[in-house]
Amino acid sequence: MYEEILKASTRIAGRIHTTPVQTSAAADAWAGKQLFFKCENFQKTGSFKARGALNAVLKAKDENPKLKGVVTHSSGNHGQALAWAARQAQLQCTVVVPEGSPLVKCNAIQSYGAELIYCAPNPQARAAAAEKIVSESAFLFVPPYDHHDVIAGQGTIATEFLSQVPDLDAILVPISGGGMTSGIAVAAKNIRPETKVFAVEPEGKDLQASLMAEQRLWKGEPKFLDTIADGIRLQQVGHLTFPLLCKYAESTVFSVSDEEMVSAMKFIWQRMKVVVEVSSSAGLAAAVSPRMKEVMPELKKIGVILCGGNVDIDKLPW
Amino acid sequence: MYEEILKASTRIAGRIHTTPVQTSAAADAWAGKQLFFKCENFQKTGSFKARGALNAVLKAKDENPKLKGVVTHSSGNHGQALAWAARQAQLQCTVVVPEGSPLVKCNAIQSYGAELIYCAPNPQARAAAAEKIVSESAFLFVPPYDHHDVIAGQGTIATEFLSQVPDLDAILVPISGGGMTSGIAVAAKNIRPETKVFAVEPEGKDLQASLMAEQRLWKGEPKFLDTIADGIRLQQVGHLTFPLLCKYAESTVFSVSDEEMVSAMKFIWQRMKVVVEVSSSAGLAAAVSPRMKEVMPELKKIGVILCGGNVDIDKLPW
Repeated sequence: MYEEILKASTRIAGRIHTTPVQTSAAADAWAGKQLFFKCENFQKTGSFKARGALNAVLKAKDENPKLKGVVTHSSGNHGQALAWAARQAQLQCTVVVPEGSPLVKCNAIQSYGAELIYCAPNPQARAAAAEKIVSESAFLFVPPYDHHDVIAGQGTIATEFLSQVPDLDAILVPISGGGMTSGIAVAAKNIRPETKVFAVEPEGKDLQASLMAEQRLWKGEPKFLDTIADGIRLQQVGHLTFPLLCKYAESTVFSVSDEEMVSAMKFIWQRMKVVVEVSSSAGLAAAVSPRMKEVMPELKKIGVILCGGNVDIDKLPW
Repeated sequence: MYEEILKASTRIAGRIHTTPVQTSAAADAWAGKQLFFKCENFQKTGSFKARGALNAVLKAKDENPKLKGVVTHSSGNHGQALAWAARQAQLQCTVVVPEGSPLVKCNAIQSYGAELIYCAPNPQARAAAAEKIVSESAFLFVPPYDHHDVIAGQGTIATEFLSQVPDLDAILVPISGGGMTSGIAVAAKNIRPETKVFAVEPEGKDLQASLMAEQRLWKGEPKFLDTIADGIRLQQVGHLTFPLLCKYAESTVFSVSDEEMVSAMKFIWQRMKVVVEVSSSAGLAAAVSPRMKEVMPELKKIGVILCGGNVDIDKLPW
């Protein structure tokens, strides 16, 4: 997997931004630690998803030059990223989005030239809608996270981050399906084994129990969590990402409430002058939580992934 | 003056941020030009004012080691910057602010340990209040713009910017008292004479007429313009900055409306994921204006100064 991440770095180089790392004396004071913010909100399409989508699309086109188009379902950021990546590779693109997705994300998907199809806001409906398009066209399905090429693309965040700040003690990663967290964990553990990679989840996901048991303890159908952090609202991580998380990420998981995320989000906007979406603030919320100081007092230099900035500025959660 | 700017660069190095330059394909498409955004909103204290204030304070303390404190009047950003700079130099600081200044700026001034004094919201009242403090204490008055050390500090923006993007055809600078614009113009013309420096003003300032006549054509007392861009609401530029502007800046001035600035501000937040205050968006508003295309079609690579990000995110102008 790590070799795939290195190949992805080469494949997508020049088309994606090397995103800056920002620091904030005020944030350091709040956390009592030295924080390094990896600004993937400044990435192409406004989120880290551009990395995985572009890697998957370019690799697929290399392997099948006759490929006509790609399709996905996504709450927004992966949809935007795939639409952008398809245009980069001169492919058609269809994106299935759940009704109620932020307008700003839907408009952006269409602005990259992709076709938009709405479905009911649950994981089953969006999978069914995407499958229908795959079976009716010859489009390739590129899932949002449970795909090796997508995971490899997201892993390039860590190769880049650790070249910018080589001695991070830990990296805090907001988690939904686990594509970004598993990719970062694989890369970090191969580059610098002593760097710990922690997932940060909205309350109710209960990832830690599954990671500690090394088996999927979620019961029933996949569902969305009750959180305003729409970028990380999947309850269950993927079937490809889960074993990678068990092997490479810490089994300790930080759970943060909506209130903690909104508080961190306001801080990032007001003090750091950076526009992030709610899910992006999960890492800072974890970094300043009492649990961080209890669990890992010895960790000093903490990387925080600001995963995206696609928020409707007319509808802020405060 | 240019030598003073070079000395200022050395004096403040290591204490201020080398601010990043950001680009945006969407902004380039809007302007029809290649834009480079100098992100002084990420500067210490949230605006470029940290440069001039720190340069003035460090130089004053060097020259008079017995200096106890500094005082200024400011609509906010210079006040914050001076409060921060005084703490850097271990000096006391008092800041006179007009009633009605954004709460976020007042809180920040106090958070740097300075004393806050309110006055009526007009230029005469704030000057009088500051003079009273100077006469009662032995504090040094550090004006917001009309001071050689302040101008020299702001000029370091240009030395830094032109080392990051050496071949800028022009730089667009939001103007109030003219400290930043004159400093940038002096530096740019010394480093690269073919780089044009344009002031961008809120409507009603009429700077162009005075620059073309090379004399101050404003009638009556200094006043505030009727604009929501509170960072650039002074009508008249300074008496030290004016001759520098006549000599080094273009006499063509871009006037932008509140509506144009708010539109540019929303774009910067939504598409570039950067928090800027209204006055910061004046440069982009000018870059995308029809006048820009008419007046200077040959200019291709345009620097845009994002001068500050100190905005109350609970009170947005949309």
